[in-house]
Amino acid sequence: MEFRLIDRIRERTAQEREDVRLGIGDDAALLAVPTGQELAVAIDTLVEGVHFPAGTAPADIGWKALAVNLSDLAAMGATPAWALLALTLPQPDAAFVDGLADGFAQLAGQHRLALVGGDTTRGPLTLSVAVHGFVPPGQALTRAGARVGDAVLVTGTLGDAAAGLRCLQAPMQMDVRTSMRDVLVGRLNRPVPRLSAGLALRGRASACLDVSDGLLADLGHLCAASGVGAEIDAALLPRSPALLGLFDEVAARDFALAGGDDYELCFTVSAARVAGVQADLARLGCGATRIGRIVAGEGVRVRDAGGGWLEPGRAGWDHFAA
Amino acid sequence: MEFRLIDRIRERTAQEREDVRLGIGDDAALLAVPTGQELAVAIDTLVEGVHFPAGTAPADIGWKALAVNLSDLAAMGATPAWALLALTLPQPDAAFVDGLADGFAQLAGQHRLALVGGDTTRGPLTLSVAVHGFVPPGQALTRAGARVGDAVLVTGTLGDAAAGLRCLQAPMQMDVRTSMRDVLVGRLNRPVPRLSAGLALRGRASACLDVSDGLLADLGHLCAASGVGAEIDAALLPRSPALLGLFDEVAARDFALAGGDDYELCFTVSAARVAGVQADLARLGCGATRIGRIVAGEGVRVRDAGGGWLEPGRAGWDHFAA
Repeated sequence: MEFRLIDRIRERTAQEREDVRLGIGDDAALLAVPTGQELAVAIDTLVEGVHFPAGTAPADIGWKALAVNLSDLAAMGATPAWALLALTLPQPDAAFVDGLADGFAQLAGQHRLALVGGDTTRGPLTLSVAVHGFVPPGQALTRAGARVGDAVLVTGTLGDAAAGLRCLQAPMQMDVRTSMRDVLVGRLNRPVPRLSAGLALRGRASACLDVSDGLLADLGHLCAASGVGAEIDAALLPRSPALLGLFDEVAARDFALAGGDDYELCFTVSAARVAGVQADLARLGCGATRIGRIVAGEGVRVRDAGGGWLEPGRAGWDHFAA
Repeated sequence: MEFRLIDRIRERTAQEREDVRLGIGDDAALLAVPTGQELAVAIDTLVEGVHFPAGTAPADIGWKALAVNLSDLAAMGATPAWALLALTLPQPDAAFVDGLADGFAQLAGQHRLALVGGDTTRGPLTLSVAVHGFVPPGQALTRAGARVGDAVLVTGTLGDAAAGLRCLQAPMQMDVRTSMRDVLVGRLNRPVPRLSAGLALRGRASACLDVSDGLLADLGHLCAASGVGAEIDAALLPRSPALLGLFDEVAARDFALAGGDDYELCFTVSAARVAGVQADLARLGCGATRIGRIVAGEGVRVRDAGGGWLEPGRAGWDHFAA
């Protein structure tokens, strides 16, 4: 029953905010954007079997549905405020909804984000979350400002989530180091949106986006929006000990280039700003690695460890690849 | 491919608005809420086979996905501004997406609403739309203000959409009057959100919501939120000539009481204001019919034509009825 499910979610995601004038329970929420702030809004959908494997724990699903959206706000340099949740479920399942709401609330609480509205319907398991954040006018990070000569950086490490999915799909022998596997699966199920990094990049990054479809695909979008090309060095790609511990060099490289689901930020800064930005992001815990540079032209080229140009077998995870 | 589908939708829904600082194509849209306005936000999902029958024309699906959300803004007395669309499709189908975008754009254009962001993913056909509108602080209509003695009114006519669905499910003989059938099916597929009525009710209605799950269920929500009860007269329910032409009295009454998918506004006003409100809504084209009154207590009771109390067989369409 729609109303009881919503009530369960509301109870589990309670978050007091002065700017929420009317929350869940009416036809619409009423919200007050602070004076002098623009609103950043994004929506993303997770479908069972497409964006997370069947059998994923409900709390992980709830966390991830919010995380992938907060990652979009991080990429804009926005501060999160409110979310809407549209939940489609095959049948009413209170334990499932409770778990999902708990995972959602766990991440929401870290960022004082309030769930202000929602909808529950019957159908194949699907979650659409819309998020709203604030950013001072003119200070948002976009995809469109990269300039020739800028350095290309990424936060954190790449490829872990895709490798984690591979671990789930192809269970390994008993002798695999399960702690490494758990790290990778954790990166798949509980991505951490780089919100503080996004804030730190305001006024410094010339362009920014989050890596959701894979580095090659997403950096390609950044280049297209900026009217430039990029050259990156495969040898510089930041990869976790867990990824390198469980997969060989070529597999680890390909996960990092095209695996998707990373939810790291990929951004460009002028060469003079690299060291300062790296120091600040190291302080924030995620770090940032310089992986290449912006060049004239278009598209993304990858230099192999040997110095030649790589021909990647796949160009990022494409929902509707032909 | 996500980017091309989004481009098709963007082209078909182009709507210039000064308050859209950055539209579709980045990680988030950037929007400027006018000074002195609060933001009203809502989200609703349509699932194929649940909210519209398989085989519904894509343009009707696109229209309806937006209409049911605009109806929520109408119920708040808000002026629509922006929408997000999360579209899940079994496979990339350009003709389908074009049709859907055209239907969406047709309604959006009537209200100068801009589609500012979206997401396309692979999966069972599902649309979640989030809408954003403006309302001056303190002037929104909510469900919570009905007072004992207030009159209960509804705009337009009730039961048509549910009867239209019945027509689709149980095709009638060739001799049925197809123009009436088309009226009912049109009300199912192309609901008209009562936005101007919602604006006209600002400062006048004591409580308001839109009728999506059926009058009995939704008026029940209004009563619960206001801490009151309601008595309505079955004989006063506004029903269209098409509904009364194709269905007998009992069926027509039940569609009007509990059929759902009406997207009319149900609202309460003090007795002194009824005539003025009715005159204004008649001028706006939808009209408003007085169907009952608010009483002390709780729940909704329906007086039959004979003067007794009706025991309705069903209490509104419940997505997850046990």
